[in-house]
Amino acid sequence: MNKVTLTIDGMMCMGCKGKVEKALEGLKGVHTYTVDLSNGKASVEYDSSLVTPDVMKVAIEDKGFSVMSVA
Amino acid sequence: MNKVTLTIDGMMCMGCKGKVEKALEGLKGVHTYTVDLSNGKASVEYDSSLVTPDVMKVAIEDKGFSVMSVA
Repeated sequence: MNKVTLTIDGMMCMGCKGKVEKALEGLKGVHTYTVDLSNGKASVEYDSSLVTPDVMKVAIEDKGFSVMSVA
Repeated sequence: MNKVTLTIDGMMCMGCKGKVEKALEGLKGVHTYTVDLSNGKASVEYDSSLVTPDVMKVAIEDKGFSVMSVA
């Protein structure tokens, strides 16, 4: 299992957080995720044979957020 | 020019409001719009030869919100 932390701009409330969670939830290969509203970070455990951080970035940005960094 | 009011569920903060505005802004044929966070309504003036309320609904729901009614 791989791990990545995405730093997300534009999450301002629990509603925003829920939208990011739903974006991650919809991706095959994402196993667990924690979205922290206070620091704007999403930590994701994933199967790199099924999904990549770039795919997560696109899914999150498609919901109107910006992914500032992937680490 | 046509007018429609969409009732939107899931807008909780200024960030959410901005995402709905961006969704409308991206549609050809949408002339003016006002998104009211307090009552969850978006009022849109549009050219019905270029865009329909259904297209607006899809664009807004694509951002993670629900459009409850179109009037």
